Amino acid sequence: MSARYLLPYSPDDIGGLPAHLHALVWDGVGPAPSQDAVRGVEFFCLPYMRHAVALPLIADLPSLRVVQTLTAGMDDVLPHVPAGVLACNARGLHDASTAELAVTLILASLRGIPHFTRLQDQGRWQQEFHPSLADRRVLILGYGSIGRALAARLEAFECEIVRVARRARPEEQVHSTQELAELLPSADVVVLLTPLTPESRHLVDANFLSRMKNGALLVNVARGPVVDTEALLAELATQRLRAALDVTDPEPLPADHPLWHAPGVLITPHVGGPSSAFLPRAKRLLREQVLRYENGDPLATGR
Amino acid sequence: MSARYLLPYSPDDIGGLPAHLHALVWDGVGPAPSQDAVRGVEFFCLPYMRHAVALPLIADLPSLRVVQTLTAGMDDVLPHVPAGVLACNARGLHDASTAELAVTLILASLRGIPHFTRLQDQGRWQQEFHPSLADRRVLILGYGSIGRALAARLEAFECEIVRVARRARPEEQVHSTQELAELLPSADVVVLLTPLTPESRHLVDANFLSRMKNGALLVNVARGPVVDTEALLAELATQRLRAALDVTDPEPLPADHPLWHAPGVLITPHVGGPSSAFLPRAKRLLREQVLRYENGDPLATGR
Repeated sequence: MSARYLLPYSPDDIGGLPAHLHALVWDGVGPAPSQDAVRGVEFFCLPYMRHAVALPLIADLPSLRVVQTLTAGMDDVLPHVPAGVLACNARGLHDASTAELAVTLILASLRGIPHFTRLQDQGRWQQEFHPSLADRRVLILGYGSIGRALAARLEAFECEIVRVARRARPEEQVHSTQELAELLPSADVVVLLTPLTPESRHLVDANFLSRMKNGALLVNVARGPVVDTEALLAELATQRLRAALDVTDPEPLPADHPLWHAPGVLITPHVGGPSSAFLPRAKRLLREQVLRYENGDPLATGR
Repeated sequence: MSARYLLPYSPDDIGGLPAHLHALVWDGVGPAPSQDAVRGVEFFCLPYMRHAVALPLIADLPSLRVVQTLTAGMDDVLPHVPAGVLACNARGLHDASTAELAVTLILASLRGIPHFTRLQDQGRWQQEFHPSLADRRVLILGYGSIGRALAARLEAFECEIVRVARRARPEEQVHSTQELAELLPSADVVVLLTPLTPESRHLVDANFLSRMKNGALLVNVARGPVVDTEALLAELATQRLRAALDVTDPEPLPADHPLWHAPGVLITPHVGGPSSAFLPRAKRLLREQVLRYENGDPLATGR
């Protein structure tokens, strides 16, 4: 009988699935299954961090009904999804890992960890005052599932949180992006968590940056092109702002790109998702989605 | 009229104090006030991070009744406090800053910030999996005011917290140090927050370290001598454990000390306290203590 599922982990590995489940396993590293084998595949879960090899396969699945990603962002996937096929992102899966990295980037930047790492490499003990997160105002731009997880983690740090999303949601204290111009000048930290859309591309341009207060920190854990890299480089060069970037534009950042050595910038190579928190949460999400599909229940489409 | 108070900030700067307050101001940087001027000083607040120059002055204060520190630890101060003089530490003052640094060290170490900083300096984009704080078990050793502030900050990170203090306090889920041998092997992160006492000196010795699990992270934000540096160096050399140290023994760490370049170690130069969180909280604490002293109310002695 032909396989209904094409998954990056075996059903045994995922656990809690019916014994009779017909699934092909492909992790995106070995050779892709043959066209004959995937003839009956209705549910395709893209292997994590292997979209480049996995996306072309979508066109070869004649029975496809669902594309499931293990990423929160779908900007690279949606153009490959045929009409009539349901695309489900991994809403919630990366909340813990990405919100945690956002806090890591904020704290490491404010408390001087890159600076102290460099002093350590030189064997230099140099006690200094650094800003704390306590008493700072943190603006979260893009207040969905990860934004909420970030706010929950920041809550206890004696800082003030300002929430901003496309549409105001007063019941959740969420401001609209229409109010950004007024809110930016008083934020000490601005965290980008907005999905990449035509609207959000270069949302952080020269004008946005010019409204940020002196000494403020820009944290990008969303997508590189949400920030206009040239405009950011110009602001960093004056040392008026600082930045901590888990995503960049272009990405990967070429070895000779000036952003690597811009003053006051901390760069991590898009590691918001890949952490030990990923695998148990990825399996849990897949288990839930496959069981829904087996039972004919509506899938969680996320977004 | 002779001054009753010797303070590191002026009463105006502290704010909320009676206009008639007789206070001398000395920040530990300029020359100390003359013996004649300090004749009537009853309440001496040691300038922060200037204990080396301030402690000898204690012997020159004939009217002294209270020594107030702006530090949590009093190990260096107590030997200088004459019998009959009340010593008050700054309990609570450093909770926000030190607990925040502890979280910073945990997150930076787990999520690879020192590693990524070094890759950044080489212009290398190298995506990797790192451990997350989510799903980890964090043992807090020394569960007082800062320990509680740390637990509050960790609460939302989907990690498990194990609290340990000298005496068990079941109502707060606090284990006794008697149970350490059983608790250590399952902890992924061990955070030291115990004061330095004869009991806690070298509490973290070869035996303690040998009970920690493979790959575990030791975080010291207490006092350097709580850890036996030689024993730690031996464990780090095998790469079985990792460490993040805000305090060391000796301190400051000499430029040629092997700890600087031990594998898997992150060192910050005793900056748990000195951050932007310090000054507003120091002034608030001083205001409260001086008002208590003025009104004849019992002082907060902390510990």
